[in-house]
Amino acid sequence: MKEKSRFENFSELARPALRQELEGAIVASAENGTPGLHEMITYQLGWTGENAGPKAEGKQIRPLLALLACDAGGGDWKDALPAAAAIELIHNFSLIHDDIEDDGETRRGRPTVWKVWGEAQAINTGDAIFALAYASLVNLVERTSPEIGLQAGKIFHRTCLRLTQGQHLDIAFEDQEEVELESYWQMVGGKTAALLAFSLEVGALCAGVSPEVQSHYRDFGHYLGMAFQVQDDILGIWGAADQIGKSNTGDLVTRKKTLPILYGLAQEEEFYKGWNEGEITPEKAVVLSQILQAEGGRAYAQSTADRLTDLALTALENANPEGEAGKILHELAEGLLKRQD
Amino acid sequence: MKEKSRFENFSELARPALRQELEGAIVASAENGTPGLHEMITYQLGWTGENAGPKAEGKQIRPLLALLACDAGGGDWKDALPAAAAIELIHNFSLIHDDIEDDGETRRGRPTVWKVWGEAQAINTGDAIFALAYASLVNLVERTSPEIGLQAGKIFHRTCLRLTQGQHLDIAFEDQEEVELESYWQMVGGKTAALLAFSLEVGALCAGVSPEVQSHYRDFGHYLGMAFQVQDDILGIWGAADQIGKSNTGDLVTRKKTLPILYGLAQEEEFYKGWNEGEITPEKAVVLSQILQAEGGRAYAQSTADRLTDLALTALENANPEGEAGKILHELAEGLLKRQD
Repeated sequence: MKEKSRFENFSELARPALRQELEGAIVASAENGTPGLHEMITYQLGWTGENAGPKAEGKQIRPLLALLACDAGGGDWKDALPAAAAIELIHNFSLIHDDIEDDGETRRGRPTVWKVWGEAQAINTGDAIFALAYASLVNLVERTSPEIGLQAGKIFHRTCLRLTQGQHLDIAFEDQEEVELESYWQMVGGKTAALLAFSLEVGALCAGVSPEVQSHYRDFGHYLGMAFQVQDDILGIWGAADQIGKSNTGDLVTRKKTLPILYGLAQEEEFYKGWNEGEITPEKAVVLSQILQAEGGRAYAQSTADRLTDLALTALENANPEGEAGKILHELAEGLLKRQD
Repeated sequence: MKEKSRFENFSELARPALRQELEGAIVASAENGTPGLHEMITYQLGWTGENAGPKAEGKQIRPLLALLACDAGGGDWKDALPAAAAIELIHNFSLIHDDIEDDGETRRGRPTVWKVWGEAQAINTGDAIFALAYASLVNLVERTSPEIGLQAGKIFHRTCLRLTQGQHLDIAFEDQEEVELESYWQMVGGKTAALLAFSLEVGALCAGVSPEVQSHYRDFGHYLGMAFQVQDDILGIWGAADQIGKSNTGDLVTRKKTLPILYGLAQEEEFYKGWNEGEITPEKAVVLSQILQAEGGRAYAQSTADRLTDLALTALENANPEGEAGKILHELAEGLLKRQD
């Protein structure tokens, strides 16, 4: 049997505490005659309904990162629990709404909330989770200090706005013929990196680190998110080809405007022509992925991912994380950023 | 020419200040490459797009009540501007989402946001406004004190949750054969009364009134909202009949489960039979409205509205509002609650 990683050990310790914090954070949703609303929320969180359990709950990587940053910053990870719960709630709020916006029918192996209860209730359940996330964050005031609570609130508002800005661009890209690279980075900065940056920053904030160290944690989360997204973009075209001997090339078939694709389009060569010539079948996608690789799209994306990974690891060094939690953050960063290996 | 009311005078003074506060509150939505998101928000607020202007902006009664409560509580109404802006933003967030949930195609005489930009962008724009509302509220910390800012935050989270709880029930009612009166009150308490209660309470809080006085303002807003909704329910069946000589009986045709209708259904007499016998045409609705009146539905709703109005006015007396703002609150309460006259 494979030995458990440091992260797995921490996860086993922290997840029950996070679960308890989340239960407290959402209990108010059942009051005032709305047990039905509470049920929709616990379904989204993976606690109730068919196939409820760890898989339906998701990996909870963001809230766990917040707890780790608090510990690595010299605090007690339990002090960051209200922030961790707020992060997990905001993440789930955005998933519920994203699933409606993208017409997604399954999530973590189960029907999405809108598939089960309809769009109207699903939109509203997302809104309720949004409000509960803010309410959870306020509990930091008691767990840490009013100053930390207020500062956490300020960066949380900005983060939530950034999430919607990223989503705005992502939706807009679908109808745009051309997408500038700058817009791509702004989209990823909002949609993927903002909540990771917040998770690390707020955790460190709860430990009472200096503003400078706090900004290193934020940068670590930001670059981690950016690098992760570019890796994901690479996997969306070439991932399965390397791993299981056949290509899924999913992002080509769905015409998702990811980094390698934007690079290829900007060359205005063979890939550009192929992209603009009618429907992209799975067969055509395999050919296009080879053309894109030959035109340098893969190498460009990989060198970008490597550069972002370096920035993430440098920021983590600068944050100088302490103890066991510090080691876990290193382990996690390297693992997350090299998952194509 | 009719003399301007006290409220109209205050409104002319305060609306430009509110507009300025709102402009500052939403400016961040255009940053990070998303002027398109900012445009959707200013459209919803009635500032841009076809037929932009005062009518498209709406009456802004809730934020103005917050400013008045601050002044009537002995403060300067300008101190409550961040809260007033947050209220107006939350109101508009809920309108955008309600319009999607109810399939509403026009709002204040213009196409709704989802009709113009599609559902995905509209859901996301609502979310962005939600985040901006929270960010605006935090500005109270600088304008008043950290203590007041934190307390405002706490009651705001509860209010936002209550809004979604009310909406949850309202959507659920559509598919329910029977709706308990208790559920009706919980729905109205969330959907209509919660934001009015918050508006009055937070305004008074900004003036630094005692917790007791603060609760009187909250009660005033709560009962004002409840009474207003019951009046609206009455108008939805008999309003136009009295006013323009023919009935529109809209709520019967759309089978909306309002207070008089729930009363009528509970009797299980002629109205109950008519409601359950096939489609309700406008002609049938006229007959049903007469039956419902004969069975006591109108008198029941009117006596309920009167009782709630008394409670609202008593709460306002207890709050003992000062000066010109106090007079305006009285004037407004009486006006709002007697609009069927």
